[in-house]
Amino acid sequence: MGEFELISRHFAACGVKRSDTAIGVGDDGAVLQVRDGYDLVVTTDTMVVGTHFFPDDNPRALGHKLVAVNVSDLAAMGAEPAWLSLALTLPAVDEPWVAAFAAGLHETAEYYNCQLIGGDTTRGPLSLTMIAKGIVPRGKALTRSGAKVGDYIYVTGTLGDAALGLKLCQGLHEVSKKHQTHILQRFHYPSARVALGQALRNIASSAMDLSDGLYGDIQHILKRSAVGASIDVARLPLSQALKDSCDNATAMQLALSGGEDYELLFTVPEARRGSLDVLLSPYGVPVSCIGRITGVAGKLELKQGEQLFNYQHRGFSHFV
Amino acid sequence: MGEFELISRHFAACGVKRSDTAIGVGDDGAVLQVRDGYDLVVTTDTMVVGTHFFPDDNPRALGHKLVAVNVSDLAAMGAEPAWLSLALTLPAVDEPWVAAFAAGLHETAEYYNCQLIGGDTTRGPLSLTMIAKGIVPRGKALTRSGAKVGDYIYVTGTLGDAALGLKLCQGLHEVSKKHQTHILQRFHYPSARVALGQALRNIASSAMDLSDGLYGDIQHILKRSAVGASIDVARLPLSQALKDSCDNATAMQLALSGGEDYELLFTVPEARRGSLDVLLSPYGVPVSCIGRITGVAGKLELKQGEQLFNYQHRGFSHFV
Repeated sequence: MGEFELISRHFAACGVKRSDTAIGVGDDGAVLQVRDGYDLVVTTDTMVVGTHFFPDDNPRALGHKLVAVNVSDLAAMGAEPAWLSLALTLPAVDEPWVAAFAAGLHETAEYYNCQLIGGDTTRGPLSLTMIAKGIVPRGKALTRSGAKVGDYIYVTGTLGDAALGLKLCQGLHEVSKKHQTHILQRFHYPSARVALGQALRNIASSAMDLSDGLYGDIQHILKRSAVGASIDVARLPLSQALKDSCDNATAMQLALSGGEDYELLFTVPEARRGSLDVLLSPYGVPVSCIGRITGVAGKLELKQGEQLFNYQHRGFSHFV
Repeated sequence: MGEFELISRHFAACGVKRSDTAIGVGDDGAVLQVRDGYDLVVTTDTMVVGTHFFPDDNPRALGHKLVAVNVSDLAAMGAEPAWLSLALTLPAVDEPWVAAFAAGLHETAEYYNCQLIGGDTTRGPLSLTMIAKGIVPRGKALTRSGAKVGDYIYVTGTLGDAALGLKLCQGLHEVSKKHQTHILQRFHYPSARVALGQALRNIASSAMDLSDGLYGDIQHILKRSAVGASIDVARLPLSQALKDSCDNATAMQLALSGGEDYELLFTVPEARRGSLDVLLSPYGVPVSCIGRITGVAGKLELKQGEQLFNYQHRGFSHFV
């Protein structure tokens, strides 16, 4: 048995076993029992060394993040996460690294009740691809294409923390000792808003997760829904840690154009807005109304209270 | 819009559209309608430059092969191929390369009636990961674990041609002009035995596809089924091209331990053997009985007629 086969088995032997997995690791493919009356939701995310993470990043955090960013896409569709496949390419077999990466992956997969059902382990430059699969009642998936003029725009949690965490790791920004743990946690160990995503199935008219920053990401909803948006930057939810660490312009830059928040962005029609607070309160995740959908297709207008807000958007890149 | 987004759209815009795809490319994830009463089958294969292919390999053939090797795993499970996801990592944007790769991918996906439903495009060392999804009537997937003592062992097509093709490309073996096209075709443009795999659903007791060579691959069936096997090497199906190009020892080496055949290996109980020829004849793919399953768990015995066949197995590696 080769080193790579040993490693594959290391991934295969542990973790969640789901009763709707007929066959997991070990055959030509996995066999999954998608519940009758449900649709399957599939997402794919690749993380490449030098592009998405540093060579010396903590492998346990990488294992966590790979699962969380994929599950976040499922959450944004209102799906219940179920299965994960892993395509792992390694330059050499570094067992402590693999063990830590697998531990991070398994503990996060367990948190979201996902079973690792297969994949491929190959030799080559370090690259991590995950395919997450979830289920959603037929026709109930949340999409980017349902926003209507007049809908209210919401985000979960706070924005910009993870981007500040990246700057902190790069030595480009200082953060007081008091806030460092929170900021680094947000960058290395993002949470996927899974329960909240499912709760939004009958409320939101559109939804997506924020991976590249609000300013760039919302354009996908505007395009797919053929609408515009007006956002009040004074209402952007900022953590105390972010506010204490940055001047106002930097905080706005991070909240609008920083990536890796993995919060949900969603729209809610006027008629369903009243029940929102009550329906979402059990989930313990704050949601903030930040603006409204407009009829000017493709146009994103930023305001600060009643004033137009002048803003120079720079696209998010992990290593810039 | 960035170069990479342009490329993603190039993949998204073309190809098969299936009626059971609720949402394809363009949202946080794809939404797929798995037919009620069916199981989902998922397979993953990665091809990395320098490990699985040469940097100057024809990109159209790579696009074909990536689809075919994934679909071959679905065929081995008796599944009907339906959907493909692609995780594509590129060092830079070489548009002619991408266009040719996409063309190969799309034409092969169309042949197998598969829709490309998403993925991820990232910057990094060239690496191609595909996730193929198919459907099979509930509980009818063919696995590696059902072989029973006394079952007859079969393979489809001929063995060793692709491995000879690799040697030809590497300049390690000569092939007469008359046979070159066939041998190179078998290496660069493998076929997945999709229709045959589905026809085997109610006949075969176990099945898998041959990717690393018969000698190594059959061990997976022996292990998962807790049985042994006796194979008569005189019955291995060899193409005229292989027989004309190699001495007997080399032909045996390529047929037993050469990789990338993508033929099906399957076992059939005595009671169902009679109907096999009739049931499989419409598919136009020859099948050969090469041996029987024995009770000595994990033991593979090679014979040549009545004699024991002495054989030194060397594991298949693409670049050795």
